[in-house]
Amino acid sequence: MDDRGSKFKEFPFVSIPQKKLMLDLVSTLEKRFESDLLPSTLPSNVQYYQNPTSTAQASLHIRPAHAHSPIDFILGSWVHSDLPTGGSLDITSLSGYLNSSNDAPNFVFEMIRSSPTMLVLILDLPPRKDLVLWPDDLKTFYEDTQLDKHRKALETLPEVQPYFSSSLYIRTVASPTAIMVRIQTENDGGERMEEIIRDHLDPISKQVLSIWLDHCACAKREVGEEERAYLKKRDSIIRNKTIEIDLGSSFPRLFGSEVANRVLEVIKEYFSV
Amino acid sequence: MDDRGSKFKEFPFVSIPQKKLMLDLVSTLEKRFESDLLPSTLPSNVQYYQNPTSTAQASLHIRPAHAHSPIDFILGSWVHSDLPTGGSLDITSLSGYLNSSNDAPNFVFEMIRSSPTMLVLILDLPPRKDLVLWPDDLKTFYEDTQLDKHRKALETLPEVQPYFSSSLYIRTVASPTAIMVRIQTENDGGERMEEIIRDHLDPISKQVLSIWLDHCACAKREVGEEERAYLKKRDSIIRNKTIEIDLGSSFPRLFGSEVANRVLEVIKEYFSV
Repeated sequence: MDDRGSKFKEFPFVSIPQKKLMLDLVSTLEKRFESDLLPSTLPSNVQYYQNPTSTAQASLHIRPAHAHSPIDFILGSWVHSDLPTGGSLDITSLSGYLNSSNDAPNFVFEMIRSSPTMLVLILDLPPRKDLVLWPDDLKTFYEDTQLDKHRKALETLPEVQPYFSSSLYIRTVASPTAIMVRIQTENDGGERMEEIIRDHLDPISKQVLSIWLDHCACAKREVGEEERAYLKKRDSIIRNKTIEIDLGSSFPRLFGSEVANRVLEVIKEYFSV
Repeated sequence: MDDRGSKFKEFPFVSIPQKKLMLDLVSTLEKRFESDLLPSTLPSNVQYYQNPTSTAQASLHIRPAHAHSPIDFILGSWVHSDLPTGGSLDITSLSGYLNSSNDAPNFVFEMIRSSPTMLVLILDLPPRKDLVLWPDDLKTFYEDTQLDKHRKALETLPEVQPYFSSSLYIRTVASPTAIMVRIQTENDGGERMEEIIRDHLDPISKQVLSIWLDHCACAKREVGEEERAYLKKRDSIIRNKTIEIDLGSSFPRLFGSEVANRVLEVIKEYFSV
């Protein structure tokens, strides 16, 4: 374990069930690939950063893997920002990116909490190939693993509604079993939300990560030269778009352009395929 | 206009607003491509067919286009089946398929009504290229045309819920702005449903068809040899899967294997790329 990621693992602004979930996911992922992952070499002002007025702060955790690992890198992050309306925005996320020796899906987990009673969850194994052209992959990674049952289970809670990202690109990269939900609970200060996180989001997120670890990251896949070039191209477009659409617009707004540029430059190095 | 499609245009089992919507869509589409479309040459026992006990009946309408049209063919259909529980199932659908000289999306409209108070609507311009690899197409066909506002408008009705097809393949071929909704109204014999069809589904469906006609079917697109081969391959997979998953399983159940095979053999001829 890399203790230079300690700032990342503090999760100082989130509730106990959410912190426990994040720590469990990070530790499961890091333990499973302990021998593959290299220590973080992020500069300290990228591991932890804030805006000039200290109303927004964040931590970033990136661990690349050695060249023969199916993993390219894992990326964890938390962002906390005071809202002008009072209250705060907290985003915690964890992703696992595979390299082009393996054509299985990546792992994405993100919780966006804009109030104690409102949370958006994105939990998905986004495909790295066009599933229309590769229906066998749809079967292997999404049907045979019964991924959809976790989305269905969540859907039964009355507080849970499907979430449609305003970015069509983010919808486009999602898998057909993507869990993209908005959870809105009654005005009880967040008590019911903590219960939902503990009793539902926690087990479901762990089960989806476990499917990714067992059936994707550790899958023995034959990837030929041509397919490898295809994966590199598609991965590269997705990563660039992720920076452009997701980070590139929100980071400067939250942290100012100087801090945002510093962090984005570092992220781009890892995102280059 | 081809009067051999008259049986198709009767829509004998659906309500007045739904019949009006279907007739308007068919007539808009046929008028716009009047000079491109060839008359239907379907055998009469495929234009209209039923199961041996007459509890299920259906009509099919296919008009291919001449070789230089951007349209490959249009396909309309209605299916009516008595349900063992009483009541009936009615499916009305209309699709427009482009050929490989044009890389724009297809058009799909389908209403599945399993009771007076329950309706599933699928209304989409399914992409024919992987939108992850062609983000410019995402912009041209989906963002610039503001397709998503129609999905959003429908979402504001309390009776409307997102619909997730049990087939992951059907989800996979959908566009990021696909309207896939389940509409459930109160037990008023269907009065509110007819109001929703007339006031909401009717104008929205016509606007989406109009976007398809203006910005997709009539778009001037440069399609090179390599891209044409790609389109043919992807179109062919989708069409085969549509027969396998959608028609191939429901037709034999509804009409018995003899009738289903007769109809599917004819559809397959048009679906071959």
